Amino acid sequence: MSFIDYRAGDIGCEAYVARPQGAGSHPVVLVAPTVRGPTRLEHAKADALAAEGYLAFVVDHYGKDQRDLGDRAFGLMNELIADRARLRRQLLDALDVAAGLEGADASRVAVIGYCFGGLCALDLARTGTDRLKGAVSVHGVFSRPNLGAQPPIKAKLLVLHGWDDPLATPDDVLGLTRELTEAGADWQLHAYGHTVHGFTNPEAAMPGRVLYNADADRRSTAATSSFLKEVLA
Amino acid sequence: MSFIDYRAGDIGCEAYVARPQGAGSHPVVLVAPTVRGPTRLEHAKADALAAEGYLAFVVDHYGKDQRDLGDRAFGLMNELIADRARLRRQLLDALDVAAGLEGADASRVAVIGYCFGGLCALDLARTGTDRLKGAVSVHGVFSRPNLGAQPPIKAKLLVLHGWDDPLATPDDVLGLTRELTEAGADWQLHAYGHTVHGFTNPEAAMPGRVLYNADADRRSTAATSSFLKEVLA
Repeated sequence: MSFIDYRAGDIGCEAYVARPQGAGSHPVVLVAPTVRGPTRLEHAKADALAAEGYLAFVVDHYGKDQRDLGDRAFGLMNELIADRARLRRQLLDALDVAAGLEGADASRVAVIGYCFGGLCALDLARTGTDRLKGAVSVHGVFSRPNLGAQPPIKAKLLVLHGWDDPLATPDDVLGLTRELTEAGADWQLHAYGHTVHGFTNPEAAMPGRVLYNADADRRSTAATSSFLKEVLA
Repeated sequence: MSFIDYRAGDIGCEAYVARPQGAGSHPVVLVAPTVRGPTRLEHAKADALAAEGYLAFVVDHYGKDQRDLGDRAFGLMNELIADRARLRRQLLDALDVAAGLEGADASRVAVIGYCFGGLCALDLARTGTDRLKGAVSVHGVFSRPNLGAQPPIKAKLLVLHGWDDPLATPDDVLGLTRELTEAGADWQLHAYGHTVHGFTNPEAAMPGRVLYNADADRRSTAATSSFLKEVLA
């Protein structure tokens, strides 16, 4: 693994990159972090993806100088959520950089995002780009962008969702299913009962709100592996 | 494979049984057919399960003398849906017979059902039996039994659902999620966009209502395999 500097929109970013064994070109998976920005959790996800044969690239939401943010992270996230055009530009730039790396197969790119990163994964698909083959939202947030008419979504989508997530209610789920259906997306939703936000994060420990769930973690990880095999075959 | 006679409630039934290779005892999977009763589609599912190492037992809903039913099948199904206590008794009897077969491991039993059989799979779990480790509903119907208070559901549940299924609307999905959550079940829902009823049946050819969908068929089959491995390990 290594860190590389890149530019996304107006900011200078730093991505954690994990490379698979072996020469030749590899399919690429962008990892979009939670509200807290890139941490060792996302680095570990990238390492696991590299072990499965993917060139993994951890997206930097807020810039290289924005680390160990504490609760400041929420303000930075809200700025991006309030300016979805900027968020979209940053994500497309990250996709460009990742797909252009040495050893990257630019024809096989997917994204997986956690919490706020789930919104980012969906937003990258919502751009309508045909350069993205798949997007996975893991305990993601579903709020729609306010950027006018939605173009057709070409990436295949997998939404992994804790049914009792207070940040994505059943009404939000219904809204998302309508949106994705109208956009013509190939979408799947996997919902887990008795599961709230943050279920893949072993450090999440707020019952009823944000809580690790070993079953949902294992099942969603397996579902992601199968999905990436399918869309990046 | 072979056929065996058995009794379920008040009727004489005949089950198609497919056995895996190898001596010793094997985990058991009951296959609950669609409204049409056991056909070669369910036989093929049982054969595929046997190839995966399961002793597969195709449930007979209506009795040995009820085959090639045509549209009469709907009347027979409606009789069972109107008498859920009878349906439940028949299903528990089938479970007893299957789990008691030579070579069956009675401590590892699951059920998978299609369409009306999905309702049967859920109803068998709704009995609260601890003899059932898992239940899979494939494009199933969700209507609740009217048998009084629901005991805790001990089987793990996987609901594989076409989001545009006219027989199980988003409201029905929400109702099911509430029911299963209240019953304390370990449940998962996999919903597929642009997918209607009968998506695993290659002969289903009524667009917007009952239609084969190769993607949903492949994905739901893979999800079922993973789930059975988990619950019958």
